[in-house]
Amino acid sequence: MHELKCKTMSKSIFYHAGCPVCLSAEHDIINLVGAENVEVVNIGENRNRIQEAEKAGVTSVPALVTPNGNTLHINFGASMADVKGSN
Amino acid sequence: MHELKCKTMSKSIFYHAGCPVCLSAEHDIINLVGAENVEVVNIGENRNRIQEAEKAGVTSVPALVTPNGNTLHINFGASMADVKGSN
Repeated sequence: MHELKCKTMSKSIFYHAGCPVCLSAEHDIINLVGAENVEVVNIGENRNRIQEAEKAGVTSVPALVTPNGNTLHINFGASMADVKGSN
Repeated sequence: MHELKCKTMSKSIFYHAGCPVCLSAEHDIINLVGAENVEVVNIGENRNRIQEAEKAGVTSVPALVTPNGNTLHINFGASMADVKGSN
C-alpha cells in the first residue's frame, strides 16, 4: 500500500474528458513520457476527481499535472465549466 | 552529418520566446521528457526559425512539436503574432 502511494506520487496525471483533442494529446503525452509515468483520468466519466483536478489548477482539459505539482494545459479541448455542465 | 540528422528527427522541439510562462513550461517539459530528447528553440531570438515553427502548426508559445509532427500548445504565453511583432 505504501509502495503504491509512492509510485503514484511520482507520476504525472493527465486529465481529459474524452474529446478528440484530449485523446490526441493523450496519445502524444504517453509517447513522450511513457505510459508507466502517467496516470490517465477521464474526469468526464470519473466525476469525483473533478475537484482534485481543479485544486491542482486545471482550468481546461486536456491538462497534465506534473509530479512537482505544475499544471500544463495542452491544446484546448474543453473548459472545466463545460466538463462540469455535461451530465 | 547523417547521424546528426537522424538524431534531430527523433527529438521533440520546444519553441518558446523567453517569457516567464515559456521558461516555466520548458523546465517542466525537460523534467518530463529529458533534456536529451528535446531541442529548445527561442524563436524570439532565433527568428529565422519562426517560419519552420509556423509550418509545424505552432500558433502560440510555448509549444512542443513531437517527433511524429504533432504540435502541443502548452500554457499560453504569447501568440506568434506577438513574437513576430517584438523586434
